[in-house]
Amino acid sequence: MRILIDERGKKYLVNAEKDFQSDLGIIKKEALEEAQPGDTLLSHLSREFKVIKSNVNDFIELMERRCSILLPKDIGIVISYTGLGCGDRVVDAGTGAGAIALHFSNVVGEKGMVYSYEIREDFSIIAQKNLDQFGIKNIELKNQDVKEGIKERDVDLIFFDLPKPWEAVDIAFGALKTGGWLAVYAPYIEQVQLLKKICKNAGFENFNSLECILREIEVKVKGTRPKTRMVGHTGYLVFSRKL
Amino acid sequence: MRILIDERGKKYLVNAEKDFQSDLGIIKKEALEEAQPGDTLLSHLSREFKVIKSNVNDFIELMERRCSILLPKDIGIVISYTGLGCGDRVVDAGTGAGAIALHFSNVVGEKGMVYSYEIREDFSIIAQKNLDQFGIKNIELKNQDVKEGIKERDVDLIFFDLPKPWEAVDIAFGALKTGGWLAVYAPYIEQVQLLKKICKNAGFENFNSLECILREIEVKVKGTRPKTRMVGHTGYLVFSRKL
Amino acid sequence: MRILIDERGKKYLVNAEKDFQSDLGIIKKEALEEAQPGDTLLSHLSREFKVIKSNVNDFIELMERRCSILLPKDIGIVISYTGLGCGDRVVDAGTGAGAIALHFSNVVGEKGMVYSYEIREDFSIIAQKNLDQFGIKNIELKNQDVKEGIKERDVDLIFFDLPKPWEAVDIAFGALKTGGWLAVYAPYIEQVQLLKKICKNAGFENFNSLECILREIEVKVKGTRPKTRMVGHTGYLVFSRKL
Amino acid sequence: MRILIDERGKKYLVNAEKDFQSDLGIIKKEALEEAQPGDTLLSHLSREFKVIKSNVNDFIELMERRCSILLPKDIGIVISYTGLGCGDRVVDAGTGAGAIALHFSNVVGEKGMVYSYEIREDFSIIAQKNLDQFGIKNIELKNQDVKEGIKERDVDLIFFDLPKPWEAVDIAFGALKTGGWLAVYAPYIEQVQLLKKICKNAGFENFNSLECILREIEVKVKGTRPKTRMVGHTGYLVFSRKL
Repeated sequence: MRILIDERGKKYLVNAEKDFQSDLGIIKKEALEEAQPGDTLLSHLSREFKVIKSNVNDFIELMERRCSILLPKDIGIVISYTGLGCGDRVVDAGTGAGAIALHFSNVVGEKGMVYSYEIREDFSIIAQKNLDQFGIKNIELKNQDVKEGIKERDVDLIFFDLPKPWEAVDIAFGALKTGGWLAVYAPYIEQVQLLKKICKNAGFENFNSLECILREIEVKVKGTRPKTRMVGHTGYLVFSRKL
Repeated sequence: MRILIDERGKKYLVNAEKDFQSDLGIIKKEALEEAQPGDTLLSHLSREFKVIKSNVNDFIELMERRCSILLPKDIGIVISYTGLGCGDRVVDAGTGAGAIALHFSNVVGEKGMVYSYEIREDFSIIAQKNLDQFGIKNIELKNQDVKEGIKERDVDLIFFDLPKPWEAVDIAFGALKTGGWLAVYAPYIEQVQLLKKICKNAGFENFNSLECILREIEVKVKGTRPKTRMVGHTGYLVFSRKL
Repeated sequence: MRILIDERGKKYLVNAEKDFQSDLGIIKKEALEEAQPGDTLLSHLSREFKVIKSNVNDFIELMERRCSILLPKDIGIVISYTGLGCGDRVVDAGTGAGAIALHFSNVVGEKGMVYSYEIREDFSIIAQKNLDQFGIKNIELKNQDVKEGIKERDVDLIFFDLPKPWEAVDIAFGALKTGGWLAVYAPYIEQVQLLKKICKNAGFENFNSLECILREIEVKVKGTRPKTRMVGHTGYLVFSRKL
Repeated sequence: MRILIDERGKKYLVNAEKDFQSDLGIIKKEALEEAQPGDTLLSHLSREFKVIKSNVNDFIELMERRCSILLPKDIGIVISYTGLGCGDRVVDAGTGAGAIALHFSNVVGEKGMVYSYEIREDFSIIAQKNLDQFGIKNIELKNQDVKEGIKERDVDLIFFDLPKPWEAVDIAFGALKTGGWLAVYAPYIEQVQLLKKICKNAGFENFNSLECILREIEVKVKGTRPKTRMVGHTGYLVFSRKL
């Protein structure tokens, strides 16, 4: 898969196995196959398309989705707080549109693996379609209810974005490696409060709950200031470690 | 390298090539070599030490440092916003205590590489000692001034934590892959303002500047509230992409 | 002036000198004149209207405006930081829709006075209309450029919401009482930076600049959380004292 | 009462009925009596003392206290959200050190009144001493438990800073004027949740809960940035109106 950018800045996710078609013309698959990041390809209408190194955020920007997705601010903090790394094995539930699974997949790489549970079949089908389109091989989508069990063992990170995450905390404890982390995304403070109790009862330690407020800064000729519009709250992030 | 936790919750970074000694007793290297995460080892004084899956944050917590380090909140956002992944090649300057280089190393893995420039020899020596102790192989420390040039080419991410990051923006542009990101950590708003101009002049696009405010939530019997003490500001994060 | 609330919760600003008319019926001026907060009045259609103690925020909610108004969060902090009190004399520029002048008027009362400068005639006319409608007597609107001078002396508080507030800092110093405060609302950080220099040069002390981030908390059956939508930034508040 | 500032910037609260003594010399009461803001007085050691217009914040800074006080950010928002004005009548419980009662007193003025309930005798005695020293006449301190009743009627604003504010919500409703506000300061989110239910049951409307995060901005030669240290959380503010 490659990303092309046309002269207007529009991005295209391109499958190099067939010809690329757009309103600015066609590019043959042979040209796509050989293209390297930084190359400029010409369509049959002589319009320029730049080949760029594709990135997980480009995928997420271009993919089909039917539900809201986790924001990079929260995904990044899950990765850094849990120390997720290349080669790690992750369990993720629910998949949703698959944004965080794609980020996990991007970090854990070929030697790692992401097992993503989603109870809703419709979300699961869309997510699978996205993975197929992007050629992602290290995410295994499971159209299963995570509360019925996690088959994987010695997992490095388990991430929940579920309405009632506490129902699967014991299951998470069983599946994690000693030293592994459970991370939960929870929009409501009541979820955080309940999780603290349940995590402790399940044997987890190092409970930590936080919220990330992200402010974009506008640097314009008129002046510099935080943007007027901002997301006031997405969710709390809860971390607990199996020790 | 392994991490042991004693009965008091104290962590030890342990080299399995020699006997481990502590005030709670000695553990033979033979026992250390065979230990798996989750195992409990007994010292000669019959005190318990749990073996845990070590994590980049454990390393950072235990390592020697002489300067302040980037916080996980900022590191995580650099990773997620730039889509850093397994196998990527990163340039980082200045190294400082090496916290962000360790996080990058953890994400890019064996097939990736982190080139970390540090102008101060004293910082460089401590950072090298930390890497040696942790057995990190995918970070190459360079006791060089990044303003004098980056030798690496086709880099996926360049990260600057420098007093005058704008002096190396052109150099960064030359070293990056098309589609790669420059990320800068800058405590002062004036740095952000200047970077916007310099990045644009250098040919960068998708300029974005932001700030992450992290609030820890205290869940206690007495009640739930954001912590009274909090870090008010670390630095702004600036992103710009080579397209 | 009285505020009526109908059965649907809609508020009306009511002049007791004439009959009140609405789609829910008419109330005679005689009934209005005698009404006390807490009374319920019946229209000729037998619909109920409750009389409430009117409040400066009710006025602002109901008044005509053609420009954005300062938010209560910023107005409140100006009042508390400068210690504005009953009987004080205030100069305000520019008037805009008059929201902060109304708050000042409300605090300083009959024995105090607010002199509000506005360079734009159209804003000034609307503001005057609002004052007349509310029967406010302690605000003197001046359709003048504050940069051309402040005639008042021994003022307790001067407040600027101007594009270039620094142009009137010297004038403010001359008009203030020793111990009085200059407060400035400034959307951009460059304004804050320049104000610090200019205020110091003008002889001001105790320079202080800050920003108030207000988060509304949603308590619902589904759960408790900060609101998703929030105002990311209005402006910085700058304070400086004549000592 | 007057405030003097010596050459070192130190402030003194001065009673003009007797001679003022300090390590920089003595000023006779006759000189104090005639002094106006802006005047400079000389001590018998020829040291200069500037007379400034005293301000409620100067009082609070100089007064004796034994407990933590509400911050101006929260006090200001209570004033602006409830539209407190000159001439209003306020009930406040518990008094604590009296900071918010002093701010209320400053706003409501001579024609207004503040009734401040405090269950602890020791706090009440200190608060009374402070009022006496400042010559405040419009605050009536009551060493009573507000839960046992509020005698005042037709009050414009009732403010609670109590461990269990819900216990006095019904009492507050009875004492308020129609259109008046109940404002509560509550450190914990559980208090906010409970207050919402209790206020609704008591007949209150327009329930609103929020939090004010105040960031101080540092403008230095080295650069401009929010301060590193900041108060992460003081308390939530809850508002409810009797309509």
